[in-house]
Amino acid sequence: MAAATGDPGLSKLQFAPFSSALDVGFWHELTQKKLNEYRLDEAPKDIKGYYYNGDSAGLPARLTLEFSAFDMSAPTPARCCPAVGTLYNTNTLESFKTADKKLLLEQAANEIWESIKSGAALENPVLLNKFLLLTFADLKKYHFYYWFCYPALCLPESLPLIQGPVGLDQRFSLKQIESLECAYDNLCQTEGVTALPYFLIKYDENTVLVSLLKHYSDFFQGQRMKITIGVYDPCNLAQYPGWPLRNFLVLAAHRWSSSFQSVEVLCFRDRTMQGARDVAHSIIFEVKLPEMAFSPDCPKAVGWEKNQKGGMGPRMVNLSECMDPKRLAESSVDLNLKLMCWRLVPTLDLDKVVSVKCLLLGAGTLGCNVARTLMGWGVRHITFVDNAKISYSNPVRQPLYEFEDCLVGGKPKALAAADRLQKIFPGVSARGFNMSIPMPGHPVNFSSVTLEQARRDVEQLEQLIESHDVIFLLMDTRESRWLPAVIAASKRKLVINAALGFDTFVVMRHGLKKPKQQDAGDLYPNHPVASADLLGSSLFANIPGYKLGCYFCNDVVAPGDSTRDRTLDQQCTVSRPGLAMIAGALAVELMVSVLQHPEGGYAIASSSDDRMNEPPTSLGLVPHQIRGFLSRFDNVLPVSLAFDKCTACSSKVLDQYEREGFNFLAKVFNSSHSFLEDLTGLTLLHQETQAAEVGTKQAFCSED
Amino acid sequence: MAAATGDPGLSKLQFAPFSSALDVGFWHELTQKKLNEYRLDEAPKDIKGYYYNGDSAGLPARLTLEFSAFDMSAPTPARCCPAVGTLYNTNTLESFKTADKKLLLEQAANEIWESIKSGAALENPVLLNKFLLLTFADLKKYHFYYWFCYPALCLPESLPLIQGPVGLDQRFSLKQIESLECAYDNLCQTEGVTALPYFLIKYDENTVLVSLLKHYSDFFQGQRMKITIGVYDPCNLAQYPGWPLRNFLVLAAHRWSSSFQSVEVLCFRDRTMQGARDVAHSIIFEVKLPEMAFSPDCPKAVGWEKNQKGGMGPRMVNLSECMDPKRLAESSVDLNLKLMCWRLVPTLDLDKVVSVKCLLLGAGTLGCNVARTLMGWGVRHITFVDNAKISYSNPVRQPLYEFEDCLVGGKPKALAAADRLQKIFPGVSARGFNMSIPMPGHPVNFSSVTLEQARRDVEQLEQLIESHDVIFLLMDTRESRWLPAVIAASKRKLVINAALGFDTFVVMRHGLKKPKQQDAGDLYPNHPVASADLLGSSLFANIPGYKLGCYFCNDVVAPGDSTRDRTLDQQCTVSRPGLAMIAGALAVELMVSVLQHPEGGYAIASSSDDRMNEPPTSLGLVPHQIRGFLSRFDNVLPVSLAFDKCTACSSKVLDQYEREGFNFLAKVFNSSHSFLEDLTGLTLLHQETQAAEVGTKQAFCSED
Repeated sequence: MAAATGDPGLSKLQFAPFSSALDVGFWHELTQKKLNEYRLDEAPKDIKGYYYNGDSAGLPARLTLEFSAFDMSAPTPARCCPAVGTLYNTNTLESFKTADKKLLLEQAANEIWESIKSGAALENPVLLNKFLLLTFADLKKYHFYYWFCYPALCLPESLPLIQGPVGLDQRFSLKQIESLECAYDNLCQTEGVTALPYFLIKYDENTVLVSLLKHYSDFFQGQRMKITIGVYDPCNLAQYPGWPLRNFLVLAAHRWSSSFQSVEVLCFRDRTMQGARDVAHSIIFEVKLPEMAFSPDCPKAVGWEKNQKGGMGPRMVNLSECMDPKRLAESSVDLNLKLMCWRLVPTLDLDKVVSVKCLLLGAGTLGCNVARTLMGWGVRHITFVDNAKISYSNPVRQPLYEFEDCLVGGKPKALAAADRLQKIFPGVSARGFNMSIPMPGHPVNFSSVTLEQARRDVEQLEQLIESHDVIFLLMDTRESRWLPAVIAASKRKLVINAALGFDTFVVMRHGLKKPKQQDAGDLYPNHPVASADLLGSSLFANIPGYKLGCYFCNDVVAPGDSTRDRTLDQQCTVSRPGLAMIAGALAVELMVSVLQHPEGGYAIASSSDDRMNEPPTSLGLVPHQIRGFLSRFDNVLPVSLAFDKCTACSSKVLDQYEREGFNFLAKVFNSSHSFLEDLTGLTLLHQETQAAEVGTKQAFCSED
Repeated sequence: MAAATGDPGLSKLQFAPFSSALDVGFWHELTQKKLNEYRLDEAPKDIKGYYYNGDSAGLPARLTLEFSAFDMSAPTPARCCPAVGTLYNTNTLESFKTADKKLLLEQAANEIWESIKSGAALENPVLLNKFLLLTFADLKKYHFYYWFCYPALCLPESLPLIQGPVGLDQRFSLKQIESLECAYDNLCQTEGVTALPYFLIKYDENTVLVSLLKHYSDFFQGQRMKITIGVYDPCNLAQYPGWPLRNFLVLAAHRWSSSFQSVEVLCFRDRTMQGARDVAHSIIFEVKLPEMAFSPDCPKAVGWEKNQKGGMGPRMVNLSECMDPKRLAESSVDLNLKLMCWRLVPTLDLDKVVSVKCLLLGAGTLGCNVARTLMGWGVRHITFVDNAKISYSNPVRQPLYEFEDCLVGGKPKALAAADRLQKIFPGVSARGFNMSIPMPGHPVNFSSVTLEQARRDVEQLEQLIESHDVIFLLMDTRESRWLPAVIAASKRKLVINAALGFDTFVVMRHGLKKPKQQDAGDLYPNHPVASADLLGSSLFANIPGYKLGCYFCNDVVAPGDSTRDRTLDQQCTVSRPGLAMIAGALAVELMVSVLQHPEGGYAIASSSDDRMNEPPTSLGLVPHQIRGFLSRFDNVLPVSLAFDKCTACSSKVLDQYEREGFNFLAKVFNSSHSFLEDLTGLTLLHQETQAAEVGTKQAFCSED
């Protein structure tokens, strides 16, 4: 216990200081406020604490701050006294350390002094219960640095004790004590407060009266030499009053020392012992009132709390050890993302990104890198589909797998990838489906078994696409992209497609068809389909999202079995190792940019020419395609229109799929190229251009 | 046992076919040949096997192929008979399956037939021992598909047995047997072979004579009706000869059926039983010689081996289960890289990449991504330096860490990163050093303890830089890059530097100073420093590597303490999540491209303008810097000259460092900006331009 003034001993009054009691809930709420509200704002904030006068012996007097400290209108707990404070939360440890604590204390002391001089403190005695809290929240480590101050104005001299302190039961009769309890309770009830921090007392042998400070002139009328005041006292030491009395004594000295020589102080302590109320351990004493009636200047003030070592210095609480590590990981990850918003991209709508449900078709090199980038963006819902097992060559290029995953034939990639995401970040909701995607030219009708399996696979895929927002095509063959491209186009889901060559890649968003009549405006209620129509866009400028092509729109052959009879190097499994990381990262960044656009997948496609223009989103451009050339360290942003004979997204294909469902699909799986080509009119096109040497585009495939 | 012709029973001769015995060593060597020599070449290859006639009863007759099969000059094992074969190794399972096995067999049979007709087989009887091996090596799964064929020409009719077969001891006396052994051994010795596959025999009651086939006319002179021939017989069945006899009988029929009616066949079997030589279990029999003397056409042939199920079909051996998984992982990883060379970049010098020793200063977001990309390139030697611990926000963006690594205060990053690399690929040699890098403006002289620690850190860093080839600067502050930049410049090491903004990055190679006199030409003996000097390069075109700037060359202030007093978002730890993956990947790809250039770090820097020119390496450009702008999905390739007042790489700094060593460094650590600025002349520059508002470049920093 520290003594504030004067020599030790009974002759001079000493005070027990507050111990700050900052609850974990307080730090949690401070973290939330910092992340979501204060951000980089260092302006002082009003907060609220409380103290209690009912502790059993042995507990220090505490000024408690908890979860509710930031809500100035939050109710004070029953039988507790409120204290109002000012939070100075700094952005850096350095500014925490260099904060001018002397100045802060002087300012607070001055406010108290002014409230005493003006009489405001008589009207509202809580103004005497002021505290300061200087903090720095290191949200990367969950270390909270803080320094608490309860400013106490100093009386010009130490106070000689005239009498006491003694226990109230040594001074008051049982009757008086009962009368005190009753009077105090009544006043609280009348005022509608849980506790009165300061009050006035008058008593005779039978009765004790209490009153509010503001009624002092009426209440003290007729008193001589001495007055009695009451303080709600958080301290439970027999010889010392707690800290709140200090400013009250200054008020008393300033207000009443011209009329009275001494003041009798009742430190009101009010506990429950064995089921019965007990105020008898309150203490009472009398001190000389110093002359302060005419001093205009604010007295010196003290109040910065000592640290755990007993010296003057800040305290630090390391909550990383007492928090649930999984919660800690979640809020840590959130922090990094929120930091982006605070200053760099204040208009970033992070919720649109974090809440998006992503389906990753393919858990190979691209799938792993896409998932890693999604995790970095805080995406919480990631589902993998793959039918391959992890082989020995995978882990060095597929960053969700390790050597151990390859043993005993290899774990299924989709399941292992989902498991790994949970290991990286327990807050993610990751699932894996070890299943095949039926493909054109890969017949399924060899037996009823394979047909039924294909039917189940299609149903599963349809359900998965339905229940996700963004579909990533990250497979290693062209033809495996066909079915999900068709289903996703039909369901109006945003498709992000990535595919690799040796040192080239394409990352693209598929055109997003106009909503069907019945569910128009589902995802992007305000997408301007109608107005975009009116733009009369030229061939490759200002193409709205619904007119953009898909992966198959540039093809003039239908997808077939491309894995048959290819040598190793033709399986497109070989690319410069950095390529998949770049393409995977860009695929996610493209998705994020599109999500930031108010029109989402319907946004007009940015092209290379738009690089010098005002970007359409806070994150920049929303291209249709990014084609990268690693040998030149160059990217171009082509835009291409949907093709009315496309084997995947043309209305002929979508109509058939929507009408016939699996029966149509089965025909495609079991047929050669010609079925889709006949259906879409490609066959006719071929015949027309047969002599014209139609070049097919360079095939881009991802790694396995 | 399969019978080749005719009805079962003693009356017709039947032959025991070979079992192919393909050793693990054979498959291993095939893998190596495929990876390093054949690559995509499907042309037939000569290989060599052998068979043995000394097996104990119960073993099948085996044609063995082992490690040595690919070396046609390799010695045949003692007492074994060679067989020459043709390997048809296909590139795909599909071409394995669709190979025209009938045609292959016919071709081989025809060669044998021609050798019989021409007499070549008489001169070199091994020509009769021909085999085929059709293979497909799935090196991703270590599955080897194969089909073995030992072509046997069919006699026009099945051969009626005139006598036997009986054991040799039932026909020959002990004396005759001894004489046979002696004659055979002598002939082998004379011919210098380990075994004679086919030979001629003459015998009387006392003596057995043997001769080479080519001497048949002399040897058989005076024979009537019947001749005796010997065959080195791998079969050990009492009733059947082995397969090699078949083509020999065709030869005999073709050559000698016009002169002789029957042939007595000695199937020579030569084993060691209880320490003693034993040929008595050889069998002998007599068959009618069919008339084949004048038929010109190649007889029908058989010989494709049955599979394990007894049907006609290929066999498959899965070596993934019997190989050491770590070896398997290594060769699998090699395969992916070699595939790049085979067709895509035949001139790629993979060894230069794989053998490079990389030092990664910083194991944060950039360090993790750089390490991952290096692993993909097959780099085997990776060392991390970092002094941070893994925090909860790291794993979602730093792809070598997981949630568990964050617990109990977090593992040291450098050590955890090295551990993770081993888990990903046990073949890597990864180390981690949990140490600080002393920095300018971060004083070390507070106490002798910190001074000594700094001295040790500097020494450690000097040793690490000395023992590595490429130094990656991937830290999160500018000033921590200073010391390694100075040391690496002094030691003439290639420096790759990567740094992130929010959605921008710079990836660059530092200029590589000319070699010092004493160790000139160390790393790149042929770098054309002299000739580049003569180029008289214009300001930003054709700048050779030694004239390029470093990270600090663009700065007009010396590095100082940049972490002090920065708010969270100013600590440059916030960037779009995809950015570090892209920059990390590009840093490695830049290194690889530079290593492929014959002049390495001295290569002339490519600029954006060079994108349309002939690239200087097989992988493309070798820029000085890649500056990326994610919001525009754009990269530019600036080139900048070394600055003669650079605080890191100017000769003033390097000279002082090389002369004074740690004493100089300590002055820098303990001084404000002005020390380095005074030294390099920056101070003067500042004064001169004070009024001119020198803009500092945008600061790029990596994530922590």
